[in-house]
This record gives sequence, C-alpha cells and structure tokens, in this order.
Amino acid sequence: MKASKKAMGKAGGKKPHARRTKPGAVLIGADLGGTNFKCGVLGMSGEVLWRDSIPLLEPNDPRGIWSEIRSLIAEAFRRAEGRRVAAIGVGAAAPLDWKEGRIFSPPNMRGLKDARLAGMLEREFGTAAFIENDANAAAYGEFRLGAGRGTQSMVALTLGTGVGGGIIIDGRLHRGSNGVAAELGHTIVDPTGPPCGCGSRGCLETYASATATARRWREGVSSGRIRPPASLAKQPGEVTAKDLFEFAELGDGGSALIFAETGAWLGEAAGSFANVLDPDIFVFCGGMAAASKHFMPALLERFRGRAVSPAREKAEIATGRLGSDSGIIGAALLAAERLRPRR
Amino acid sequence: MKASKKAMGKAGGKKPHARRTKPGAVLIGADLGGTNFKCGVLGMSGEVLWRDSIPLLEPNDPRGIWSEIRSLIAEAFRRAEGRRVAAIGVGAAAPLDWKEGRIFSPPNMRGLKDARLAGMLEREFGTAAFIENDANAAAYGEFRLGAGRGTQSMVALTLGTGVGGGIIIDGRLHRGSNGVAAELGHTIVDPTGPPCGCGSRGCLETYASATATARRWREGVSSGRIRPPASLAKQPGEVTAKDLFEFAELGDGGSALIFAETGAWLGEAAGSFANVLDPDIFVFCGGMAAASKHFMPALLERFRGRAVSPAREKAEIATGRLGSDSGIIGAALLAAERLRPRR
Repeated sequence: MKASKKAMGKAGGKKPHARRTKPGAVLIGADLGGTNFKCGVLGMSGEVLWRDSIPLLEPNDPRGIWSEIRSLIAEAFRRAEGRRVAAIGVGAAAPLDWKEGRIFSPPNMRGLKDARLAGMLEREFGTAAFIENDANAAAYGEFRLGAGRGTQSMVALTLGTGVGGGIIIDGRLHRGSNGVAAELGHTIVDPTGPPCGCGSRGCLETYASATATARRWREGVSSGRIRPPASLAKQPGEVTAKDLFEFAELGDGGSALIFAETGAWLGEAAGSFANVLDPDIFVFCGGMAAASKHFMPALLERFRGRAVSPAREKAEIATGRLGSDSGIIGAALLAAERLRPRR
Repeated sequence: MKASKKAMGKAGGKKPHARRTKPGAVLIGADLGGTNFKCGVLGMSGEVLWRDSIPLLEPNDPRGIWSEIRSLIAEAFRRAEGRRVAAIGVGAAAPLDWKEGRIFSPPNMRGLKDARLAGMLEREFGTAAFIENDANAAAYGEFRLGAGRGTQSMVALTLGTGVGGGIIIDGRLHRGSNGVAAELGHTIVDPTGPPCGCGSRGCLETYASATATARRWREGVSSGRIRPPASLAKQPGEVTAKDLFEFAELGDGGSALIFAETGAWLGEAAGSFANVLDPDIFVFCGGMAAASKHFMPALLERFRGRAVSPAREKAEIATGRLGSDSGIIGAALLAAERLRPRR
C-alpha cells in the first residue's frame, strides 16, 4: 500500500503523464521481446482491457528503445481512461535482477544494457514498476488465468526460438536464490548433443525449441533421412518450425516424424522435471505449442516412461490457453503481488 | 498442540509403554533402511541424545519386521528417561504416502507391504508418529543442522546403492503434489545410457550411485580401459565403491579416473538442477560422499559448465556433515514440524 500511495502521490503531482484517477484501479502489463514490445491495460484480476504491440525498431540504441517502450506505455496510460494505474509489470527477454529492477546485457536489446528499467519507469510514470523474466511472467499468467488455473503447482515450458521455463510452487512463482530458476531449456538431455548458446551442450533447447526442430528437419533433409514435401516452395535452409507445422497439417510424413522427435525430447525432460518437482500440471506454451497435436503423443509416451509413479499417472499435461497474452497478464499480476508487501 | 496433548493423554493413560513424564520433551527419530533400522532420542532442536542401530533380520515377514521396529523404539522410549516424547518420525526407504502414514510395497521390506506404519506406531506408543521418504528426511537433517544450516534453499543428493534426493525451498521440505518430488536419481543424463531399475534408461543413478561407480570400474577392467591395482586381493566382480575409495586413497589411477567420471555425471546433473531450482547450496551425502576428494574436482568443473550465471558462481557445493545421523535428525525434526499444525 505504501508503494502505491507514494506512486499516486507522484502521479497526482508533477509527473508529465499524471492524470486524475477514477475509482477502479488497473494494471499495466508489458512483454519486452527482442523484436516486439507488447503492452496492455488489465483489470486487477488480470483481465485484458486493451492491448497493443509494436515492433522494436531500435533495440540496440539506448534512447531509441527507451522512447519506443515509453511511448507505448504512455498510450496504455491514456487507454486506462483516468483509472488509477496501481502498478506496471514488464516481462523482459533479458538477463535481469528482478529485485533491483535492472537489466544486465541482453544480446538482442543492447540499448537496455545495464538499464535500471523499473526505476526509469517509476520516474517516468510516477507508478510502481517491476520487471520479471519473460518466461516466468508468461508461466505465471497461465497459472493464474490459463491452463494452470485452480492448481497449486505448475511447470511451464515455452517453445520458441529457445526453450524457456517457469515454475510455480505452492501458488508462488519460484525465482530461485539468484533469480535464474526455471531455465528449463538449459538442462541436460544428451551429453553428446549439439553445442548450445549457453556454452554447454546437449541442452533440451538444442533439440526441442522451434529453432532446433527446424534445424533437425534440415539436417534430416541433408542426410537423406527426411524427404521434403513435394510442394516445398522454398529452399530447405529457409524452412521454419511454422512451415513444418503447415506441412504436418497437410499430412507430410517427414515433418510429422520431426515433431514426434521433438515430443520425445520434451517428454524425457518433462518426466525428469516431474521427478524433481512433482507438480500438479505441465503446460506447454509459446509459438510451437500450436503444433502440439503433432508432438504430444510422443511427449506423453516418453513422459510416462520417465516420470515415477504416481506422478506418471497423475500429472496433468496441457497446452497454454492464453496465447501471447500470457506474458502481459503474468507481468501485471506479479507486479500487483509485489505491491504488497513490496518486494 | 492438540496432537501432542492427545498423545500425552494417551501416554499418561492406558498404553503399555506409557510412563510419567518429566519436563523437557524429546523426539524419537528413526531411519528404516532395507537392511538396518536406526533409532535415536533427540532434543526438540534435533540434538542426538542417544542412538542405536539394529540389522533387520526379518524384513519380509510382517510380524518379524514390526517386532524389530517396535522393540528398538521401545528401547528409545526407555532411553528418554521419563521425558515426554512429543513425536516419533521415521524416514523409510520405501514408496510411501507421507500424509496417510502408509507404506506401499517396498521391494526390500515386503513385511511392510501396505502397512499403515504411522498409525501402528501411534497406537503402540500413544505418541504422534509420522513417516517420510528417507532421502527427504536425511536432506532435511542436513538442512537444519548440517551443511545447509543458515541457508534458505538446498538440493541434497544422497550417493549410495542408488542416488536419492531432497529439496528444500524457502526453508521447507518440497515433497511435491504426489509426494515423489526430489527423485533426483531418476532424471535423464544420457538417452542412450544403461537401463535403470525404474524402467527408464540413462538416469543419473545408472552412472553416479556407488553401485554404478563400481559397475563402471568393473566394465572398465573387463574392456581393458581400466587397469586394476596390482595389490587387488579380490575378484574384480566383488569390488565395491568403498574398495575403489581405498584404492584411490593409495594413489591408484584407475579408481581415480572412475571417480572423476562419477563427478562429471554429478556435475552435469547438479548444473541442470541449478538451472531448474537455483538453490543456495548443493549437499552431497550418503556413503560415497566420503570419496568426495576424488570426485569433487570433476563435479565442480562440469557444474560450472552447465549451470547458468550467476548460479554457476554463487551456488555453494558441499558435502554432508551429519554422516548417517542426518536421517534420524531430519525425521525427528519433520515430525516436530508436523505436530503444529498437524499434517
């Protein structure tokens, strides 16, 4: 309460974006990726009232990226239509210190290197602001309002360029001692596997991300193990996981096989996570979750071969329900939670 | 409080082991393995006042094993010397329901199949009784009074016949939704690895338990990769991890190499667990932890290659400090915790 009162005091005072508040507070939730910035106005229970997304045109320029972030959040304040904004929450695809609100050195947003983003937002908008790991925010969104609703513990795996993760235990986001818990893409699945961007090798991410799935297909085509669909209209080197999904939907056997292999790796990993955490539910989300029909059967089979009983039978396995809104919802709800007690 | 009052009432009443209580309550902690039963009297803060251990001569006979358990616990009551026993806690090497106090079907103690052990102890001794997974109990003992003292989160790996685990998050034992969390020995480290007793393959346990370490040495000797020490006085097939420790202490290169490989597997797994849980400390305990000098350098190297920063630099890596007392200490302290609020 102290934080929000202070924020209100600021907003009612001398800040440029200050405005008179109507009853019924709202939250601003944002999702800061390397290429896009999404922002929304949400009710205090996380319902999305308004949202928009812009491409980040100047991610590597400090003034440029800050101007882009600031302008969309200012637009969200306008869209709040005079209601008090209780807090701003931002999920960011960058190494960060969630307690201090500081971004470290994000490879894809060099303009935010060492930026004290939470403090910058607080000063700019006169509102309490908090940052979180983007995969944690998305997982928390799914936990509170999506596939995990009603459960007490959840493991989320976000399948995109990489494999992100989020862990909820006893209803609370588990961030870890150093804020790096749930880097689930960087757990070992194969000691002789491909090198990973993290410096290690054979990480889950090197087999089961969307990027890795497309790479495995291309390798399969190169080696002759996979036959590309006859209708292929681009070079095999340009094929993405999204293309593979479309091929698989049309009945292409090669892409179906590749997705089944992705599912097997995900099942091995999820089974191992069951043996570590024993959560109520696993939720697979992110862009590639749209292809779950093609990887889920193999995933379930391997999961059941790996997880010990009774987690093997009892853990629920689901896909995300909130789509790309999970990030802004989770970031907003985590910010609301951190208001009381603050941090 | 309600539970302990009830227990006192019973103990002061009609129970065979009842006795008049002096001020200063104590706990009874026990560790039920497949071959031995250890039991102690402990102060309310977990300090061991008395302990003893007996071999289990009739583990597969229901009346036999119950008689052995009961007689040593009765002896512990005598050793309590009139002080009130607030609770009995038992860590058991068996699949069990910790909430219900029930053992399922332990392969090594078939006499306890489907035994409602907590209830049997409560009826017999008129004292609140609780059971826990033995690795969880040992981890909790190390957390409260051993290597993890003063930390908030811990991952313990117990290296013996198998690889057990225990996880403490925010000061509390993490048991999971189905009570099977922290089965850390059954997480994947190699998809093409040896078959495991759990039905899967390439589990950490198949490479890094004491049993697996000795097996890898024997396989190395068979294949000619490892040269046995010149002084070897038994058949290679009879060599145990304890023997290898003795060889390594005497400077034998083959056993040192095998321990380094064990360390590398443990480091890969611990690094992965850091990326999942990001705890303050990792504690390696169990019989083979005595050989830590021989596996720790390789463990640390692989850990640092696998864990993401800053967990890589900040996580503490230690060995257990309580030896085989960790189990009775943890079981006793968990029982004391469960008294209020009960279960």
